[in-house]
Amino acid sequence: MNEEKDPRIVIALGGNALGDTAEDQQKKIEAAAPALVGLIRRGYEIIVTHGNGPQVGMINNAFAYGSKQEPSIPPMELAECTAMSQGYIGYHLQKGIRRELRELEMPWHIATVVTQVVVDENDPAFHHPQKPIGPYYTKEEAEELQGKHPDHVYADDAGRGYRRMVPSPKPVTIVEKESIMNLLDHEFVVIACGGGGIPVVKEGCCGYRGVPAVVDKDFAAAKLAELVEAKYLFILTAVDKVSINFGKPDEQPFDEMTTEQAEAYIAQGQFAPGSMRPKVEAAVSFAKSGPGRVAVIAALDKAAEAVDGSAGTRIYEKLLH
Amino acid sequence: MNEEKDPRIVIALGGNALGDTAEDQQKKIEAAAPALVGLIRRGYEIIVTHGNGPQVGMINNAFAYGSKQEPSIPPMELAECTAMSQGYIGYHLQKGIRRELRELEMPWHIATVVTQVVVDENDPAFHHPQKPIGPYYTKEEAEELQGKHPDHVYADDAGRGYRRMVPSPKPVTIVEKESIMNLLDHEFVVIACGGGGIPVVKEGCCGYRGVPAVVDKDFAAAKLAELVEAKYLFILTAVDKVSINFGKPDEQPFDEMTTEQAEAYIAQGQFAPGSMRPKVEAAVSFAKSGPGRVAVIAALDKAAEAVDGSAGTRIYEKLLH
Repeated sequence: MNEEKDPRIVIALGGNALGDTAEDQQKKIEAAAPALVGLIRRGYEIIVTHGNGPQVGMINNAFAYGSKQEPSIPPMELAECTAMSQGYIGYHLQKGIRRELRELEMPWHIATVVTQVVVDENDPAFHHPQKPIGPYYTKEEAEELQGKHPDHVYADDAGRGYRRMVPSPKPVTIVEKESIMNLLDHEFVVIACGGGGIPVVKEGCCGYRGVPAVVDKDFAAAKLAELVEAKYLFILTAVDKVSINFGKPDEQPFDEMTTEQAEAYIAQGQFAPGSMRPKVEAAVSFAKSGPGRVAVIAALDKAAEAVDGSAGTRIYEKLLH
Repeated sequence: MNEEKDPRIVIALGGNALGDTAEDQQKKIEAAAPALVGLIRRGYEIIVTHGNGPQVGMINNAFAYGSKQEPSIPPMELAECTAMSQGYIGYHLQKGIRRELRELEMPWHIATVVTQVVVDENDPAFHHPQKPIGPYYTKEEAEELQGKHPDHVYADDAGRGYRRMVPSPKPVTIVEKESIMNLLDHEFVVIACGGGGIPVVKEGCCGYRGVPAVVDKDFAAAKLAELVEAKYLFILTAVDKVSINFGKPDEQPFDEMTTEQAEAYIAQGQFAPGSMRPKVEAAVSFAKSGPGRVAVIAALDKAAEAVDGSAGTRIYEKLLH
């Protein structure tokens, strides 16, 4: 552990918070950069990871539509689309965060590492696609698409509309963990595991093979936080706090929650699948992975306050805290 | 310089050598991996860079066609398309090279760094688009596309067909050079500057802005080789050697060439623009950048022989050699 000297925070940004176009994404990242750099100013090392649900869907769709019209455009598998989304989002993140660092005359370097995340070929998720990617559709649009793509699965995404669903196996380890650790040890802000990482399975003695899936970015972030021995995992999203009875008259937000409480609420079905539930599950998994580890679920613009405990919901292991 | 201990080779792979589909690209990279790893076995550190002409064109086209059909797909600027191509090609390169390293029980790590290359806003290239991207078209197809996209430029690409031409400004420096150096100093094979790097220009005190251009990968490789103090720049392509009177009865291939000779042949118009000419120009620029620096233009599968001088064309500065 490296808590004394320069505690590490792994920050997971939601893909939905990054907008729908390149221009939009750049603006949203520039708006978020002060909160992220604020954490470095408070004495933390940060590792940034991000979702790619809308972006990987957009890239996959561009190739799907493009290849129908123009024979020189091949259809593109999900693993390659995630690799593309890492370049696309990583580029904007490193540009936006670097600008903020330099404006504050902070000498930190910043780099995006293309990251493969190993998953288990026998993960049951391969038989139950339930990770939403791409745009939202009405029920009618989804039914029409389903007819055109019999191998796709469309379903309702947490009441926000219909989306394509793909398998989301759990991350087992991160192929590029040494690269990430190496850069962290040398005053780098590292952007890694974008879109949950490019999902690969072991192949033969020595290789990996990409698989048609998307790893949940919150689980990948929790795995990354565990591997780099982070003190905090920050899951930054659109809501201020984790709530039970969400959207109901007796909605109750939490400032903090033990892993035990969180697990009980998960079992009660308090959190929407594909939305708050994987965030709370990832938070619990990280908080239980070692002593003193704390996961925080907070709004993107409240990151700096959340580290002081004045914003967001802190999730921790009671016995280890 | 670090010639004594572990001389560095920057290897530039042609985007055309990587195939047209993801499957094809993966196979071609796996076939090339032994030659690349062969250089490490001979005691060199390698930095791999690659072109992206066909790939960035494919990605740009996918978004262009996709966005016409489906409103949720935005058109995508060239800088972002290059960022995507770095993720896409970098993923396959790191997977393919890593497998070869592990099969030979070599402990090297490997990482792709998303790379921005700074260009000059006033580079005359912005007024003369002449870097080919995307698929080849017949003259008739090109004229039809020109009608549809008045802001595009289409022209004949070295007699191989018509292609879209985009500005190709010269690289000034590499934003992520510290990241690259840092990894190189720790037994990493680094993949960087893919597609010539994401072209950016300085903006204000502290930031960069992407520009609609593609930096020539050979010039970017020469700049990278200069910045990492490489001993060799290897430009790997489809031909065995640099020739004058190429394709004529008196074609004359060269085993070696001084920078003086090379410059004279460039002035004579011996090398095709957009094909061999930028390679020879990049080779000359690197050979002249410091004492003992040698550029080699060789066939992709002859990389290991080329380092011994038994394949390819070596280009060096006479006075400094």
